[in-house]
Amino acid sequence: MITVIAGGVGAARYLTGQLQVTPAPEVTAVVNVADDVELHGLHISPDIDTVIYTLSGAIDRNRGWGLADETWNALNELRALGLDAWFSLGDRDLATHMFRTTLLSQGRSLSEVTARLAEARGLRCRVMPVSDQPIETRVTLAATRHEAQREVGFQEYFVRLGHQPDVAAVRFEGIEAARPAPGVLEAIRDADVVVIAPSNPVVSIGPVLAVPGVSEALAARRDRNVAVSPIVAGAALKGPADRMLRSLGEEPSAVGVARLYRDFISKLVIDEADAALADTVAAMGVQPVVTQTIMSSPQAASALAQATVAAVS
Amino acid sequence: MITVIAGGVGAARYLTGQLQVTPAPEVTAVVNVADDVELHGLHISPDIDTVIYTLSGAIDRNRGWGLADETWNALNELRALGLDAWFSLGDRDLATHMFRTTLLSQGRSLSEVTARLAEARGLRCRVMPVSDQPIETRVTLAATRHEAQREVGFQEYFVRLGHQPDVAAVRFEGIEAARPAPGVLEAIRDADVVVIAPSNPVVSIGPVLAVPGVSEALAARRDRNVAVSPIVAGAALKGPADRMLRSLGEEPSAVGVARLYRDFISKLVIDEADAALADTVAAMGVQPVVTQTIMSSPQAASALAQATVAAVS
Repeated sequence: MITVIAGGVGAARYLTGQLQVTPAPEVTAVVNVADDVELHGLHISPDIDTVIYTLSGAIDRNRGWGLADETWNALNELRALGLDAWFSLGDRDLATHMFRTTLLSQGRSLSEVTARLAEARGLRCRVMPVSDQPIETRVTLAATRHEAQREVGFQEYFVRLGHQPDVAAVRFEGIEAARPAPGVLEAIRDADVVVIAPSNPVVSIGPVLAVPGVSEALAARRDRNVAVSPIVAGAALKGPADRMLRSLGEEPSAVGVARLYRDFISKLVIDEADAALADTVAAMGVQPVVTQTIMSSPQAASALAQATVAAVS
Repeated sequence: MITVIAGGVGAARYLTGQLQVTPAPEVTAVVNVADDVELHGLHISPDIDTVIYTLSGAIDRNRGWGLADETWNALNELRALGLDAWFSLGDRDLATHMFRTTLLSQGRSLSEVTARLAEARGLRCRVMPVSDQPIETRVTLAATRHEAQREVGFQEYFVRLGHQPDVAAVRFEGIEAARPAPGVLEAIRDADVVVIAPSNPVVSIGPVLAVPGVSEALAARRDRNVAVSPIVAGAALKGPADRMLRSLGEEPSAVGVARLYRDFISKLVIDEADAALADTVAAMGVQPVVTQTIMSSPQAASALAQATVAAVS
């Protein structure tokens, strides 16, 4: 049994590799929900959707988000009506959010809705939100010459502002009241291996670890937990993780990742490009595993999953 | 200045005629909102949308509702995901509901949103909801051999059940707390002519008249108000108005319409097919105006509007 702590794109790619080497019913993804957003009345769960769309093969591979063969008639019309609709929503993608919103309004939990969406798209692995309670990543943008420091929602930072501003702080609104969703602590406790996927440590993995009970459950079985560094040669493969780590005072490298995760993992998979950092990672008390981590093909993703799991098996 | 009390399709057609004979800035539509519905998180105002879509020429003429050149990718996907999505929502139509829901969630009133939607679609007449407060038509379905009497929402009766069941009662949830939207009472008071459009008297015009203050404002100027009968030769041109009148104990004819409206109108336009009812209508204290009322062409709609306004001018 493999449990993967997951954010969006990087985690979804890692999971495609995992599913090539592990039977789907033995794989559980515990997914971040802190970048969920309510827009136009709809409940949108970007990380869950990216995971489900990717694993079902429905994702648009070029964009890396949303569905393939998508149309944009609703969004174009919404803009024609004069709304500043900055979050791209395809017509078929809208159905996912309408489905989720409908079931939530009928009193279903996000876990139930997520399980139904995964099943509807033919997945046989388990996909669960880390929590059924709302958690909201709030990003404090650093002051600039033109603007005082201010706090915005994660999607506003990430999508509307194209994750360009410097980040002064990040907090997870609602995290104290959040509880692990049903099955999350069991999935961590009972797994042979827990993998922290190569996702943004601050805003993707951070909120998962911050849900009360999750970090304790991970720490209690640290020797069978392994992470894959999302930072290669000092840069995030995608997104602002490197700049975010730096502006939050953390080293934007595999070493910084090791420092953030060291209470929860015994091994850290780092890229061959970072082989020179292995000793420094080890000095953090985390054993480095040096391998090729760039998931440029299904084969590469599968090899990465194999090496990752082998590190703590 | 002409103010038209409006439901959906029939009123929208009447208004297209009115706008051929009256400058748009002198026409105000006061529209029913009691068949509004929240679905999939979205606020849908079917009568307002039908009026705006029709007057802007965006309506699908064959269906009589929704937008022309529509696609159905979201709805098809929603059904593929396993949701019983019984309310047809086209992709471009969704944008209207997303726009409305977004602005309402930002604290805008339904009147403001409606004005913006009308403006965005290029209308120069005024379109206003009768109220900014929620009013919800609830329909009690008569008991059948298979099922006890039960109450459903209007759209469930109208769309999901195809308005086939017999109706035992109709009530307007929230009507006591509803207030006329800003401008509604003034539009009634200041109009040269108020027209009650040929819409369903029970569920389209009924809720408008039931908003506290509206019927009093109409009664105070009864001599300059005129209605167009939506019942011709004992049948509704569209929808269940005839069956509904009958099952609620009202005569499904121009006479029944005259009886319902007689406190608010001095003239009732009835179709040539109902010329024989003119005396009975007159006996209700409402003066009949017999003319061609079937709006089979833009010319017919324009002639009807001209005859209707002339009746009380």
